[in-house]
Amino acid sequence: MRKFVSGNLNYSSWSIRALLMARHVGLQVEEEIVPLDFPATTARLADISPSRKVPLLIWDDETVWDSLAIIEWLAERYPSVWPENPAARARARAISAEMHSGFPTLRRDCPMDIRSRHATPELTAALQADVQRVDTIWSETRERFGVRGDFLFGDWSAADAVYAPVVTRFITYNLPRSEIAQAYMDAVMAHPLMVTLAEEAAAEPWWIKYEAGVRSAGFTSSENS
Amino acid sequence: MRKFVSGNLNYSSWSIRALLMARHVGLQVEEEIVPLDFPATTARLADISPSRKVPLLIWDDETVWDSLAIIEWLAERYPSVWPENPAARARARAISAEMHSGFPTLRRDCPMDIRSRHATPELTAALQADVQRVDTIWSETRERFGVRGDFLFGDWSAADAVYAPVVTRFITYNLPRSEIAQAYMDAVMAHPLMVTLAEEAAAEPWWIKYEAGVRSAGFTSSENS
Ligand SMILES: N[C@@H](CCC(=O)N[C@@H](CS)C(=O)NCC(=O)O)C(=O)O
Ligand SMILES: N[C@@H](CCC(=O)N[C@@H](CS)C(=O)NCC(=O)O)C(=O)O
Repeated sequence: MRKFVSGNLNYSSWSIRALLMARHVGLQVEEEIVPLDFPATTARLADISPSRKVPLLIWDDETVWDSLAIIEWLAERYPSVWPENPAARARARAISAEMHSGFPTLRRDCPMDIRSRHATPELTAALQADVQRVDTIWSETRERFGVRGDFLFGDWSAADAVYAPVVTRFITYNLPRSEIAQAYMDAVMAHPLMVTLAEEAAAEPWWIKYEAGVRSAGFTSSENS
Repeated sequence: MRKFVSGNLNYSSWSIRALLMARHVGLQVEEEIVPLDFPATTARLADISPSRKVPLLIWDDETVWDSLAIIEWLAERYPSVWPENPAARARARAISAEMHSGFPTLRRDCPMDIRSRHATPELTAALQADVQRVDTIWSETRERFGVRGDFLFGDWSAADAVYAPVVTRFITYNLPRSEIAQAYMDAVMAHPLMVTLAEEAAAEPWWIKYEAGVRSAGFTSSENS
């Protein structure tokens, strides 16, 4: 069995990072979505995922979890996952690993919701610091490494996939950004992989809502006319 | 200039992960310590580190930050950073990336303090889940991949360096553990790299204290007799 398991694409930022790269390299896998936050979700994840989380790549006898580990798994087997130049590749991994372990305020205050537009949350010092750091990463990387193309390292790479959910958050919550960041965001959203993903996210029947800090999930049937 | 910059070894869990591997491969670099939590720390880090964090590897014109990105930088240049077998390597990266982005409760309730022993914090459900997950990772990995040696994948690898700070936390806070976890912890603490590191951590003059959730730092002069 060869299967890539994601959470709902509209909400599962970790999932889409690895999924974008699996699709980028043309990985031959079935794709499954486990909608998050439903009563059955926890049991289903416990069943299939060692970390009880998605994304998950099941590849014959191997089960690889965690978005970054899946991306490295792809990088060992396919070209054009990380930038080819060693200095660029080191930088791409630095900003990706920084995203992997950081930005707790941005994550908490601006949960990914690709297809929606929400009010900008209060720009606390912590949120502002996260937003500013993202902008600096995009701007400095574009300036030093991105001259030959529209993405962080010129051509699309795993670093763009890692920051793609952040791009959608900047749009969903209308976060402040520099001109160079805006141009980068436009390029990401215009990438064919992102156009497809945004369409899929918009078409998903599941929704997750935050009200007074409480998360709830539901399902909208397309039949209920 | 070729330099590896760490926080104080006793406290900076991210630093020692990458430092252990830099030493493991015999990287020829000067080592510098920036003691954390002093009034001058923030300015010093802003000066040298793009992320304002340590660890940091300065290698001629390249500056590589983030422990996991430094480990991958080493892995591209030296053998025996990740396990050689592809399935083992994929697993090693999965558990390392899981650690990199997870375990917030364990981090918060049990900050690394290698040379000290503290009371076990209240085992809330969240802390217990983190502790149990670590034990499961150690036990399952040892059972499936560690048969030919004492470490997670037999020989010492980056996965052990990633979990080394967690091993010290289990000791410092006397967290509950299985027998197989205990045997693994003993092996880690007996590894020559860890023995040296524990001695260095014990000899550091700087201290960090948590009182009623407030963090403070100080300096103990060895001259004050
Ligand atoms: N570090 C992991 C994080 C994965 C993660 O937190 N996934 C979330 C969804 S985005 C999840 O599966 N949560 C479990 C749940 O909602 O029950 C990765 O990069 O893959
Ligand atoms: N994801 C980063 C995290 C680095 C990190 O948070 N380092 C802490 C020390 S352990 C730091 O430099 N904090 C800045 C400060 O204390 O001012 C990594 O793995 O290197």
